[in-house]
Amino acid sequence: MATPRQIADPKEMQREALAWRAAGKRIAFVPTMGFLHEGHAALLRDGRKRGDVLVLSIFVNPTQFGPHEDFDRYPRDLPRDLAIADKEGTDVVFLPTKDAMYPAGYSTYVDVGGVSEPLEGEKRPGHFRGVATIVSKLFTTVQPHAAIFGQKDWQQLAVIRRMTADLSLPVEIVGHPIVREPDGLALSSRNVYLSPAERARALGLSRGLGKAESLFASGERRAASLIAEATAEIAPDAGVVIEYVALVDPDTLRAVDPAPARALMALAVKVGKTRLIDNRVFTPAP
Amino acid sequence: MATPRQIADPKEMQREALAWRAAGKRIAFVPTMGFLHEGHAALLRDGRKRGDVLVLSIFVNPTQFGPHEDFDRYPRDLPRDLAIADKEGTDVVFLPTKDAMYPAGYSTYVDVGGVSEPLEGEKRPGHFRGVATIVSKLFTTVQPHAAIFGQKDWQQLAVIRRMTADLSLPVEIVGHPIVREPDGLALSSRNVYLSPAERARALGLSRGLGKAESLFASGERRAASLIAEATAEIAPDAGVVIEYVALVDPDTLRAVDPAPARALMALAVKVGKTRLIDNRVFTPAP
Repeated sequence: MATPRQIADPKEMQREALAWRAAGKRIAFVPTMGFLHEGHAALLRDGRKRGDVLVLSIFVNPTQFGPHEDFDRYPRDLPRDLAIADKEGTDVVFLPTKDAMYPAGYSTYVDVGGVSEPLEGEKRPGHFRGVATIVSKLFTTVQPHAAIFGQKDWQQLAVIRRMTADLSLPVEIVGHPIVREPDGLALSSRNVYLSPAERARALGLSRGLGKAESLFASGERRAASLIAEATAEIAPDAGVVIEYVALVDPDTLRAVDPAPARALMALAVKVGKTRLIDNRVFTPAP
Repeated sequence: MATPRQIADPKEMQREALAWRAAGKRIAFVPTMGFLHEGHAALLRDGRKRGDVLVLSIFVNPTQFGPHEDFDRYPRDLPRDLAIADKEGTDVVFLPTKDAMYPAGYSTYVDVGGVSEPLEGEKRPGHFRGVATIVSKLFTTVQPHAAIFGQKDWQQLAVIRRMTADLSLPVEIVGHPIVREPDGLALSSRNVYLSPAERARALGLSRGLGKAESLFASGERRAASLIAEATAEIAPDAGVVIEYVALVDPDTLRAVDPAPARALMALAVKVGKTRLIDNRVFTPAP
């Protein structure tokens, strides 16, 4: 089977990208940590429409994992990733090594304040510093005109938007809606960790968001009520531990109470040993 | 008199720069805080040879000044700067406002560890964070192929080299030798602060470096002896206060003792209220 061109060397990737730009080509970019699922495929299809050249990166970025997180066991399946990339019309798969991205002596980090601080920022110290640093490096290496990110990592998207604006990076940041399983579970590479029983419990996340959204649609605006509605559906116990269920401003990620016309409910829940996140934007019925 | 084209809007500057790149033009860049002197003119002449388009930026960057430093009184003279820029063949002078570079809500900073920590990093906390952030922003805005910096700010140059390599920025960093007055005083926009008596005392910096270099050339390698030689020439007293005289590795800026074959002596001295820096690389006679 034909697979897309693979580039491992960041210098070669940047040379290619600068040559595409010099030739007037538009570069669309989908950065990932691999183990692609239908959510990533949707990002690639979106990117395919936005560029003459479509680049997918696969890099499990060590600097965005905490010391007790799952960097070492993060799932990997390159042959399957390449097949999906090929099917979606990817031109180049950029798969640098850790040592190529962070050579000995590496010491520069990009810090985004404000929007990176609550929620994931509190639960995963240093996570967004790692995200902002690697995305900034990937942008200078791949030189994209547009980059597409999934909205499941809503706060990540907000951090990247902030960084891109602040550092004047000439990249259009595109957020793509969450892709879900038919039963509502948001797609995530980490879903593979779930046992069948855990997977059933994980459905509480999207169901909880749906219940809270219905309550919001009925006119409820008190944060505590909306959060309680979602929490009840998640039904935390010894095997399902809520890290946060929060009602926040979708742009600043700061808590809101009562909810304004447009509010984001975001949550993080550990189901067994697997940490899952999900979110939904509540807007008034049209 | 014809003056170079002036651009104040960062978005317009970036549009122009991307258009030059698309047209295959090579961009040379000299970032400054204005109040240009012959040292800056030398950077512009160097830049003129390195690019089809020569851009000078003038921006007194607030984030690299400490709360008790001289941001508010930093000298400015735009008409004279434009005349010098014109004389040296500058194509575009980029002079953004503070609000355009740091709009409300700005919250992203670039941090370079290691090389930024000793010397100026100790004496001016946050200084290099401001430098790395603004240089990174200026690079994404001006999109240079080459950027020219003076070696008087040796550590700044080392920090920028580190950042550029770490963030994979496609920019060649050029260090230009210090330009001095005939009597040895390193050119600095801050020299204008000096009274005639202070200016006479300020000559101790370059003389001290020269004395220490002679001692190094005679075979002395002990850091304490070399530092004492420079210190004696500076002759600190109530009006001349040494912040540091250090013998360091020219790349890592870490203290060395004894001096290896190639060592940097760097110093910072307050003469009256004016803080001056200077440095010299010691290498064995050929």
